[in-house]
Amino acid sequence: MDKISMNRRQFVSASAATLIGAAVVPRTSQAAVPEAQFQSSANMVVPPLPADGPFYNPVVTLNGWSAPSRFKNGRREFHLIAEPVERQIAPGMMANLWGYNGQSPGPTIECVEGETIRIYVTNKLPEHTTIHWHGIILPSGMDGVGGLSQPQIKPGETFVYEFEMNKSGTFMYHPHADEMTQMAMGMMGFLVVHPKDPEQHKVDRDFVFLMASYDIDPGMFTPKVNTMTDFNLWTWNSRVFPGIDHFVIKQGDRARIRFGNLTMTNHPIHMHGYDFEVTCTDGGWVPESARWPEVTVDCAIGQMRAFEFVADNPGDWAIHCHKAHHTMNAMGHDVPTMIGVDHRSIARQIVDVVPEFMVMGERGMADMGVMEMPLPDNTIPMMTGWGQFGPIEMGGMFSVVKVREGLKDRDYSDPGWYVHPKGTVAYKFDSENS
Amino acid sequence: MDKISMNRRQFVSASAATLIGAAVVPRTSQAAVPEAQFQSSANMVVPPLPADGPFYNPVVTLNGWSAPSRFKNGRREFHLIAEPVERQIAPGMMANLWGYNGQSPGPTIECVEGETIRIYVTNKLPEHTTIHWHGIILPSGMDGVGGLSQPQIKPGETFVYEFEMNKSGTFMYHPHADEMTQMAMGMMGFLVVHPKDPEQHKVDRDFVFLMASYDIDPGMFTPKVNTMTDFNLWTWNSRVFPGIDHFVIKQGDRARIRFGNLTMTNHPIHMHGYDFEVTCTDGGWVPESARWPEVTVDCAIGQMRAFEFVADNPGDWAIHCHKAHHTMNAMGHDVPTMIGVDHRSIARQIVDVVPEFMVMGERGMADMGVMEMPLPDNTIPMMTGWGQFGPIEMGGMFSVVKVREGLKDRDYSDPGWYVHPKGTVAYKFDSENS
Amino acid sequence: MDKISMNRRQFVSASAATLIGAAVVPRTSQAAVPEAQFQSSANMVVPPLPADGPFYNPVVTLNGWSAPSRFKNGRREFHLIAEPVERQIAPGMMANLWGYNGQSPGPTIECVEGETIRIYVTNKLPEHTTIHWHGIILPSGMDGVGGLSQPQIKPGETFVYEFEMNKSGTFMYHPHADEMTQMAMGMMGFLVVHPKDPEQHKVDRDFVFLMASYDIDPGMFTPKVNTMTDFNLWTWNSRVFPGIDHFVIKQGDRARIRFGNLTMTNHPIHMHGYDFEVTCTDGGWVPESARWPEVTVDCAIGQMRAFEFVADNPGDWAIHCHKAHHTMNAMGHDVPTMIGVDHRSIARQIVDVVPEFMVMGERGMADMGVMEMPLPDNTIPMMTGWGQFGPIEMGGMFSVVKVREGLKDRDYSDPGWYVHPKGTVAYKFDSENS
Repeated sequence: MDKISMNRRQFVSASAATLIGAAVVPRTSQAAVPEAQFQSSANMVVPPLPADGPFYNPVVTLNGWSAPSRFKNGRREFHLIAEPVERQIAPGMMANLWGYNGQSPGPTIECVEGETIRIYVTNKLPEHTTIHWHGIILPSGMDGVGGLSQPQIKPGETFVYEFEMNKSGTFMYHPHADEMTQMAMGMMGFLVVHPKDPEQHKVDRDFVFLMASYDIDPGMFTPKVNTMTDFNLWTWNSRVFPGIDHFVIKQGDRARIRFGNLTMTNHPIHMHGYDFEVTCTDGGWVPESARWPEVTVDCAIGQMRAFEFVADNPGDWAIHCHKAHHTMNAMGHDVPTMIGVDHRSIARQIVDVVPEFMVMGERGMADMGVMEMPLPDNTIPMMTGWGQFGPIEMGGMFSVVKVREGLKDRDYSDPGWYVHPKGTVAYKFDSENS
Repeated sequence: MDKISMNRRQFVSASAATLIGAAVVPRTSQAAVPEAQFQSSANMVVPPLPADGPFYNPVVTLNGWSAPSRFKNGRREFHLIAEPVERQIAPGMMANLWGYNGQSPGPTIECVEGETIRIYVTNKLPEHTTIHWHGIILPSGMDGVGGLSQPQIKPGETFVYEFEMNKSGTFMYHPHADEMTQMAMGMMGFLVVHPKDPEQHKVDRDFVFLMASYDIDPGMFTPKVNTMTDFNLWTWNSRVFPGIDHFVIKQGDRARIRFGNLTMTNHPIHMHGYDFEVTCTDGGWVPESARWPEVTVDCAIGQMRAFEFVADNPGDWAIHCHKAHHTMNAMGHDVPTMIGVDHRSIARQIVDVVPEFMVMGERGMADMGVMEMPLPDNTIPMMTGWGQFGPIEMGGMFSVVKVREGLKDRDYSDPGWYVHPKGTVAYKFDSENS
Repeated sequence: MDKISMNRRQFVSASAATLIGAAVVPRTSQAAVPEAQFQSSANMVVPPLPADGPFYNPVVTLNGWSAPSRFKNGRREFHLIAEPVERQIAPGMMANLWGYNGQSPGPTIECVEGETIRIYVTNKLPEHTTIHWHGIILPSGMDGVGGLSQPQIKPGETFVYEFEMNKSGTFMYHPHADEMTQMAMGMMGFLVVHPKDPEQHKVDRDFVFLMASYDIDPGMFTPKVNTMTDFNLWTWNSRVFPGIDHFVIKQGDRARIRFGNLTMTNHPIHMHGYDFEVTCTDGGWVPESARWPEVTVDCAIGQMRAFEFVADNPGDWAIHCHKAHHTMNAMGHDVPTMIGVDHRSIARQIVDVVPEFMVMGERGMADMGVMEMPLPDNTIPMMTGWGQFGPIEMGGMFSVVKVREGLKDRDYSDPGWYVHPKGTVAYKFDSENS
């Protein structure tokens, strides 16, 4: 858990002449490019209260952080660096992805309705890129579709986007250049526009995550970018269970969970213990008259959904994609069904030759949640996790909403408290902080 | 059609000591465990009017039945036995599944808003299990997520769930332990909570079914449990066309059709002859102001939907998933397209050697609906069924809504009447009961 | 662009005796069969204002046309010929499909609420067919489900459908006979019922398209009809980018875009630059109280959606399915990821032997949008298109909404103006008509 020390790399002004496209950022203003800030781990960073500008209640980015901004000439300015990154998918597995400012997803951008924002985007990838601001109503030239609304940003160049945030809501950013590849490599980030009036759409706890899918062969580090449907890692903020942060909420608080989908298929997001309503999409706030009661929100690709509830039911509540193979990690497709077959005699023969051989699955697959076969390096078990009552037998898009009474104010404002003292892999919730 | 005789197996109290986890059910109350009732066929059972407790209008479970319950100490009690079962998928095909009380899906549980229900779950599977009560708002310890909210129920043990039904609606139950395997094997059941006021949300006919997908190789009996997307049997209540019961409705009646999805993909359920509105989800009743007119309801995995309409348009109306390959049964993926190619000379040569050889598909695939190639044992033809006007050429998730005037009251209250005298495979609707 | 000359083939009355099923059309009325009109190209045809009957504002069928009709005995009559057709998928690729009246999709049928329509359907396919009128409330015998509601129409026969259009809205037609094959071959068409009161649901610009998926191996012409999920051509009106017409709208106009899905998976349709509301489904008009703000509309199979917006944001706005591999054309599934690997030495060795060898993808896939590898004949590049700012790197379900001020009335009423002078492949929008 990194509470205060974000890894900052100074923007190297010496190389700015090559990094910045002259036509875009005048040489005279190069010193004005805001410092880019980086994150080197997948630990959640405490979202700081806004330092400048109007007040807003910052969102909690699961296993992520919010981009710092600065006010200058009446604009809120950010600096994103598109670049190759290393992301820990869960303890035990690293991936070579592409992202922004050191991680995938990139930092969450937060601003306030009515503000003008300026975003410097520097391309440190080996190919060109752009950023499309999904859901934002903006001038055509700022829309980020390579070839159609702007020339793609070449490697080494910096492009400046600037537009007014004319409505509050739930948005995201991602490339619209060599799009399938760049999203398959992890390039995306959340974007929240807070209402000008902080009493509007007010909640106590506000979580955000993006869904991405990767196809990384067991033992490998780099996603296969041409996979169309058969992904083996279904992630929230490029993390899988048991590596996804919990959603810790004080009993009685009003909570909002926002998410967006940039995978290749729909994800029906199911939360236990509550029913709730979708209150916001990437198109805007849903009128009360139009809301449906749900326990599972189907989120299509290129859609975003936010649902709200009052956390009045204490306990540990599973939250997960309801596609059963999306709560599994990388698995063999060709595992035959052993159910109903007794393999003891065959196994005995094989074990004579291959001592570590185990026959899995003749009584179901639950054995896999308890004992673990030897795995290739850099691979997460298909079914894993351990809860207070035993093996959880999950993977992928699975986490836990923990509703607790009596959270202290200090603790409550500090996301560092939310995770288990032993680290973010806090699926076993013990008595010290339950 | 079994009208009155459900196959009852006495709960064997002699073995209760081993079957029941001592920590869960005290020995002194073992005699109090309610009798479990079983079903040995896929025939629809007349839903009896409630014997105890408040009145409700029971639902019709396609090719299924409702679990009997008893009132004791102010609670409605049920007994579910998780166990391997044999299910007839359609005449001509049996499957080895896992289910409850003799069949897959398990019996529908019906109760009334405000009641406390107690459900004894006995595990006769070869591996541990749990039951999650999808959509029910209940205490965390009753939520049935193995490892997280309870220890999994070991083989031979009985676990008791007890909670209050605090709202009416449309729910389901399924394991949350070795979840992908156990659902791929057919473990699931419907759960309906009727409103306390029987005038609320009142309809005349109320049908329920769950969607499950199986991957059973032609000629085999047991599903492959690690399949992720390429299933070959898309079922309603573990049945495929022409084995799925009709929805018989008296002209002018208000009807409701409720369904839930536990497959691996969305199912857009399309009904002909009407437009209609979704009035209920697994999250609750949809306010009138929020309802959409639809002819196709997309139901994501882990979602439930109920739609309603007044049956004022008489006739035979197809109801089906609109994914064309979900209204087909097991098929070869690698069948080449023969359209536009004349194979007569090639066929003639092959037939000299292999007399039963037929060239399918050079004029389309409709031949397959009429004549049938020799099939492996225990396999349903890809396209099949016969209607009053000829071959229906369907399979999988397909049935017929039959809206008829002049149904007698006696007939109407007796689902046994609804099916063709020749049996439930009543796709050919003849003049005697049309 | 064909403005006035539709290719008309005279309905050959000499062969009518064999073409028309005697039981259906009495011989005495054969002269009364309306002339069928054909289209031989994929160019958009100016939708004519209604010649007979009440006034309505015709829809614009992307890369298509509306079927002419005539009034007779108080009925609006159409004639559809089901037959094999040749469709240009995009410049450079032809496909052998099945369709209606010379093209796939068939002509859009437009009529007015309250009218009775009669549709003569002649089957010139090598196998039987029917037409189902998706979403229309009609008598059971007109519903077009082969075997269930009518005998299939045999090759050479004509069947007459007749029913009243009892509500306005957004519908489609397609076969319900050997359904998977016939839809996989392209048989479908749009059907719009205009409100009796032209002021109701009035918009200035009204676009329609249907989504179909094909699996045509590179270099081949005929779709594989048994493909279930792995299609390689994701089309709007059987066209892919850069072959799909633009949506040209005058700034300030109210526009509606209607679409339906007859593929094998959901399509989340995303439009840039605006948020909007779904106002109509195939079930009817959505009440205002129930509408959601959206930027991406997920359209399931067998669903239709219409969304509306006021075109007040000028510019070029991408509109596309948000599944990234649906905005790609046919691609290799087994292309390995080269990212991060330097292949120059290997490539040099291979190039010695195979001079045209190129290593793609070691810096991402964007190279593919600029240079093009030699392709098999009759194949569209995976990523293609060229905009005013460079390569667009798209394919499949992608087009551009062009909102322009100052469109002249003459131009505006003439869809021929909407496309680039160089043809429908007008992705590069130049200054002459911008």
